[in-house]
Amino acid sequence: MEGKKCVGILTSGGDAPGMNAAIRAVTRAAIYNGFDVKGIMRGYKGLITDEIIPFQTQNVSNIIQQGGTILKTARCEEFRTPEGRKIAYDNIIKHGISALVVIGGDGSLTGARIFASEYNFPIVGVPGTIDNDLFGTDTTIGYDTALNTIVESVDKIRDTATSHERIFFIEVMGREAGFLALNGAIASGAEAAIIPEIATEVDQLGEFIQQGFRKSKNSSIVLVAESELTGGAIGLAERVKNEFPQYDVRVTILGHIQRGGSPSASDRILASRLGEAAINALLEDQRNVMVGIQNDELVYIPFSKAIKNQKPIKRELLNTLRTLSI
Amino acid sequence: MEGKKCVGILTSGGDAPGMNAAIRAVTRAAIYNGFDVKGIMRGYKGLITDEIIPFQTQNVSNIIQQGGTILKTARCEEFRTPEGRKIAYDNIIKHGISALVVIGGDGSLTGARIFASEYNFPIVGVPGTIDNDLFGTDTTIGYDTALNTIVESVDKIRDTATSHERIFFIEVMGREAGFLALNGAIASGAEAAIIPEIATEVDQLGEFIQQGFRKSKNSSIVLVAESELTGGAIGLAERVKNEFPQYDVRVTILGHIQRGGSPSASDRILASRLGEAAINALLEDQRNVMVGIQNDELVYIPFSKAIKNQKPIKRELLNTLRTLSI
Amino acid sequence: MEGKKCVGILTSGGDAPGMNAAIRAVTRAAIYNGFDVKGIMRGYKGLITDEIIPFQTQNVSNIIQQGGTILKTARCEEFRTPEGRKIAYDNIIKHGISALVVIGGDGSLTGARIFASEYNFPIVGVPGTIDNDLFGTDTTIGYDTALNTIVESVDKIRDTATSHERIFFIEVMGREAGFLALNGAIASGAEAAIIPEIATEVDQLGEFIQQGFRKSKNSSIVLVAESELTGGAIGLAERVKNEFPQYDVRVTILGHIQRGGSPSASDRILASRLGEAAINALLEDQRNVMVGIQNDELVYIPFSKAIKNQKPIKRELLNTLRTLSI
Amino acid sequence: MEGKKCVGILTSGGDAPGMNAAIRAVTRAAIYNGFDVKGIMRGYKGLITDEIIPFQTQNVSNIIQQGGTILKTARCEEFRTPEGRKIAYDNIIKHGISALVVIGGDGSLTGARIFASEYNFPIVGVPGTIDNDLFGTDTTIGYDTALNTIVESVDKIRDTATSHERIFFIEVMGREAGFLALNGAIASGAEAAIIPEIATEVDQLGEFIQQGFRKSKNSSIVLVAESELTGGAIGLAERVKNEFPQYDVRVTILGHIQRGGSPSASDRILASRLGEAAINALLEDQRNVMVGIQNDELVYIPFSKAIKNQKPIKRELLNTLRTLSI
Repeated sequence: MEGKKCVGILTSGGDAPGMNAAIRAVTRAAIYNGFDVKGIMRGYKGLITDEIIPFQTQNVSNIIQQGGTILKTARCEEFRTPEGRKIAYDNIIKHGISALVVIGGDGSLTGARIFASEYNFPIVGVPGTIDNDLFGTDTTIGYDTALNTIVESVDKIRDTATSHERIFFIEVMGREAGFLALNGAIASGAEAAIIPEIATEVDQLGEFIQQGFRKSKNSSIVLVAESELTGGAIGLAERVKNEFPQYDVRVTILGHIQRGGSPSASDRILASRLGEAAINALLEDQRNVMVGIQNDELVYIPFSKAIKNQKPIKRELLNTLRTLSI
Repeated sequence: MEGKKCVGILTSGGDAPGMNAAIRAVTRAAIYNGFDVKGIMRGYKGLITDEIIPFQTQNVSNIIQQGGTILKTARCEEFRTPEGRKIAYDNIIKHGISALVVIGGDGSLTGARIFASEYNFPIVGVPGTIDNDLFGTDTTIGYDTALNTIVESVDKIRDTATSHERIFFIEVMGREAGFLALNGAIASGAEAAIIPEIATEVDQLGEFIQQGFRKSKNSSIVLVAESELTGGAIGLAERVKNEFPQYDVRVTILGHIQRGGSPSASDRILASRLGEAAINALLEDQRNVMVGIQNDELVYIPFSKAIKNQKPIKRELLNTLRTLSI
Repeated sequence: MEGKKCVGILTSGGDAPGMNAAIRAVTRAAIYNGFDVKGIMRGYKGLITDEIIPFQTQNVSNIIQQGGTILKTARCEEFRTPEGRKIAYDNIIKHGISALVVIGGDGSLTGARIFASEYNFPIVGVPGTIDNDLFGTDTTIGYDTALNTIVESVDKIRDTATSHERIFFIEVMGREAGFLALNGAIASGAEAAIIPEIATEVDQLGEFIQQGFRKSKNSSIVLVAESELTGGAIGLAERVKNEFPQYDVRVTILGHIQRGGSPSASDRILASRLGEAAINALLEDQRNVMVGIQNDELVYIPFSKAIKNQKPIKRELLNTLRTLSI
Repeated sequence: MEGKKCVGILTSGGDAPGMNAAIRAVTRAAIYNGFDVKGIMRGYKGLITDEIIPFQTQNVSNIIQQGGTILKTARCEEFRTPEGRKIAYDNIIKHGISALVVIGGDGSLTGARIFASEYNFPIVGVPGTIDNDLFGTDTTIGYDTALNTIVESVDKIRDTATSHERIFFIEVMGREAGFLALNGAIASGAEAAIIPEIATEVDQLGEFIQQGFRKSKNSSIVLVAESELTGGAIGLAERVKNEFPQYDVRVTILGHIQRGGSPSASDRILASRLGEAAINALLEDQRNVMVGIQNDELVYIPFSKAIKNQKPIKRELLNTLRTLSI
């Protein structure tokens, strides 16, 4: 592409705290390196509906601390069709955009991958999802903040009066990954975590509960990943109520509060580094890669690897949780 | 009563942030005035199971900032029977307790009232409940903190991506009183509050929703008091889904996180003043009164008035909410 | 003035959390009542430099939770001169502004009063200052949030290791009023508050310190209002170091963090009610009054009274502090 | 040593959020593995003054979320003398303690190393310091929380009204290491960081300031590590005031609030893993090592390496900061 390069930025999928810090970093690193920048509203939808606006450094002033995303996100069925992607491509060309930076999770990068190969268009992905379920990066933007939100919520629930033999099932996000549930449980001093990766935990729940109350604990807190594989907090609570009618079982579903809030220091630093790295990737003629962080070093991961491989949970953490909840 | 006076303290009912600050204030004001102090565990239950321990100033050090209650609370069916109250009275005498301070809500003060009249025993109540539903005091211990917890949660939910035509129903506590829902809605910039006091609001919900989206708002947030009178967030969401299938309706139930957390400055000051006032009441030979605050002045309210009268919601606040959510 | 009324809004003086909530309320209540609205940037300065922009409801969307003020504030020497005020008036007329709402503290309302009388121009004031030092309103916008910020900071300082005989002097804002220091001390469980209103407290500091350590406390925390009358935290610390060289004396000056942060629920409700009340005042042809809240009712206070009278500190709170820090 | 093994735990040096989580993890992992546990109060001082108490799992219940350390810390001159260490050793033997776990920073591990070699006594160190300045571990307990506290404070300061040409110098901890200042600056969107590792930054400050205001920024925030090498915030502010009298220069010293507060999720997980690892080290007959984390794997570092080597700052982060503050 001739002339001045122009980078388009969009955020897509479930939003995650730190997306704004990433938008700021991409924008400023691009301008620092002599690119033009355009902000695309509502994810892939804005490519189709032509909601695309020029971005200066001022557009991203004073947003590093804000939750959500100033570019908004939305689901977009039309982008799943070849016709929709054709419209998107035409708009990209019309606006003179020569490369895209897509900030989002698994689904967003899948869309990026298809579009990039269809139109041979350079795209760099930035991992933004509270679920931490992208392969090739140690952590994703939003995960640390969501973990802190969970832990602060469990702290509040633990504050409440501990009658004997009360069990709280607290449902956290993580449809296919137990990072939030397992690490949240360790950090909040919970008694157990029920995660999609390890089905046996559910089977051992009864045993665990009996053990727990043999240890004469006043109350137990169990974190449950929201997943068909775990049954969710309501499903588990029903099961426990049937098996152990003597217990007072309570359910809390943290829900959308996990997606919001001012990003943690760690998420802001991660977003700043990855956002800058996305522009560096374009400068190095990388394309169709996700930027990631491994052992504190910036890396490029092909979309195919980032999406298809499953990031494994650290099983030793389950032992840590068990040992420390005695 | 001969000899040194001894004050027993208990917390009862649903716990509320600031109860520890009240325990600290009662304890220290009592010791300052030459009383002995005993802490009674798990509310009225501890009177029956004889879990009663001597308290020094050190027992209440470094608790002013802690949520929950170091004395715990529990429901106690036995105290509802004359036999149970007899055992309680015997334990009170055994421990040399000459007056009780009961920190709690409506149900706790009802128990206090019955016991006080049955045994002609001096009791002073301190209003501790997040619901703010006690008559005779402008505000109750825990209400301000719960309101802040609600508002912080709604802030996080508002952060998340605003697709078009999404409605969030967020359920907050308040079985018979809409203070949390109404004031929480104003403070969080929500579009509406559904409260038990005003049934017509539910009927106007459909109209409101259509108006809201005519104003081309991207998304709406409605706070709903958890109450049979409102139908709760899930009930309302079902109804709206049926009437307006085109909207994306989400439900969040904040639940027990509203009862926990470090108390706000305002709740700590209130608890400190009311705790000290409870001891002053005993010094002035008051009995069977709740201490309260009216127009920033400390007052004594007979149990009968505090329990039986309903504290009215300020209806002009509904207008404020409507005006400001245009 | 004929035609549609137009309200100009400005924030002035030291900024306070909740000013944005007030701007939102003034704007929306004005539009709700059929007024036009214009936002004036940087306080009185914007009147002179002609930084005045039309405001719609969208201009104040999603700001209720933000600290600071989207209208900015600045000191403006020029507005203190008749020539400056002439320029301001000409700009007001040029923009068709028919009434002003001024959100700020003592100094801001003084400026409003002079301007209003000079040009017979309707102005309504909204009390926004963390110091809570305006007469005629029980509390001012920003005070509750600042108090919470102080208390959270003192909580953190109290967390740190308590060696024997360490004294922390923590300086908080309040040049002429001890509300923050005194109420902050009660809420954080501090041992003493040194406030401008009560000079004797400083004289008793030595006695207090000896008593404190006789009580074998590990460490003491003293809140000091930043004021010439108290000597400030550094001045007091020097004095104590000289008199009691055996103590380990530390100073923390909280500074500007007290002015920022997301406003508390209480400040947002107050700002919403007062902002709406300012427009109601204009509808009722009130002018040159500050809106305030007394005993939970909205009131109008002539500028002269709000500025000149000193709001008294509640002296019984000093007793509460002493009693509870035994 | 015959019979049941007994682990003594102490915290030493400046306290750090997460120390309680580490105490909990060491205690419970020890009991889980069949050890006895004793808590030693006030660091090395408690070894000399014989403040040593038996610990059960209940002693560490409900502390994972608390700042500070329930074991307290204190400076101890006597432990620096052979005579003091002799008394300490005698007390250790008297209490049947067969191994020590020392939670603290550089100075604490130096003390441990001397004592361990003098008496051939097994000690395992756990890195607890907000400064993050221990070699051999990617991060130390307390660092992440302190970083978040700094960032939240800077957010509040950034909220306040931005007059033209105002510069805030905010001093953060880090006597010999700039991790907090540099990462805090990136995370809070500050314009610069002045850190002890890189003296040239100070020299370039004047140039930076002129550039900053050429970019027509309203205000600048500079984070300064508290260090003789940087001159501290007050020193720098004086220098800038002399060179650029036209700027309005403000100083905030965050001070002890950085050491307190409820630990972040990340610090709690780190503390839990390192605490458990310390017991595993003892089970594996490791001694005179610090447990650490490298690339998410637990490692053992000889005291000599952890103390003597300097952990390098990531210089590329300075470039990130410069790029993103345009």
